[in-house]
Amino acid sequence: MLEFWFEFASTYSYVAAARLRAVAEAAQVEVRYEPFLLGPIFADQGWNDSPFNLQPVKGRYMWRDMERLCEARGLPFQRPSVFPRNGLLAARVCCVGRDEAWLPEFVEAVYAANFGQDRDIADRELLAHILETLGAPGGDILAATQDAAIKQRLREQTDRARAHGIFGAPSFVAGGELYWGQDRLGDAIAKASLGA
Amino acid sequence: MLEFWFEFASTYSYVAAARLRAVAEAAQVEVRYEPFLLGPIFADQGWNDSPFNLQPVKGRYMWRDMERLCEARGLPFQRPSVFPRNGLLAARVCCVGRDEAWLPEFVEAVYAANFGQDRDIADRELLAHILETLGAPGGDILAATQDAAIKQRLREQTDRARAHGIFGAPSFVAGGELYWGQDRLGDAIAKASLGA
Repeated sequence: MLEFWFEFASTYSYVAAARLRAVAEAAQVEVRYEPFLLGPIFADQGWNDSPFNLQPVKGRYMWRDMERLCEARGLPFQRPSVFPRNGLLAARVCCVGRDEAWLPEFVEAVYAANFGQDRDIADRELLAHILETLGAPGGDILAATQDAAIKQRLREQTDRARAHGIFGAPSFVAGGELYWGQDRLGDAIAKASLGA
Repeated sequence: MLEFWFEFASTYSYVAAARLRAVAEAAQVEVRYEPFLLGPIFADQGWNDSPFNLQPVKGRYMWRDMERLCEARGLPFQRPSVFPRNGLLAARVCCVGRDEAWLPEFVEAVYAANFGQDRDIADRELLAHILETLGAPGGDILAATQDAAIKQRLREQTDRARAHGIFGAPSFVAGGELYWGQDRLGDAIAKASLGA
């Protein structure tokens, strides 16, 4: 079993999410989708923004790297006009749907909207539309995101991420090991396969 | 042609350096060894230490990751008792030897001393011994490291690294593209092969 720890504002998580299902299915590894927020974890470091904004030289590299990674993998890519985007509502949707079959495709579609289509992923209409497209009751799910228990669940997810030693996204947990970065999906899948 | 940009204090550069020659030879890619110093580049960010020390949660991850990467690749690993170590003198040796046949093996041996044997790589005796083992005149080379022209050459290397947009090590430059991290050696080699 592989835990996929993701934040919707994270660029490299888009690349990871886009190939995760196929890679995991090929290896017969079960995936648990684990949403969390990077904002509080960056705040632990004293950062009030993405490191890609705080460190422009790293940001310039990352945007070029995203462009060529997406091109190499046939993924649509448009540099978002707002970065980082607010993924709070979408992350809460994932908390509502944590046991639902639509969750993986919802995650993929939100990433594609943010990084492939430059859409505002905090927009309720967009999220409702994605859910309805997947056959899920968008209005009910968005209403449920406002429940205190769901808000609390996402806070607990971020605390669980901290407890795993997670400091960025995407991160993977498999067989008691943490792997950071989309480059390490293969290593994480291999570890999860050993434990299967 | 592939440029390998390295700093002797950099953990992941050890992993990259250890497999670089074999990977490049298999792909028939020529490698240029490009020493630089991360200290001045980190200072540009306002950092006075390695980010792995400034951000302990990332440092904990990195040490565990080094351990398992080295294990997977059959590389000796001992967590250095001092980190980051001062690689200034060893980098100047590389500037002296930039056109010498011993350079790749010298680089590999210095990394192995730092991260495989917990040795002080600022020690003149150690560096002289490595050079002599490779059939190079250790005393003469170490004396040459104190020439103003060699000190200036290393400063220029660090300026060239900045001009490439390099912000960490290892970094690779191939076909006008920058790749950061030992994970990306394969991508960099592929790019270099296309241009060969």
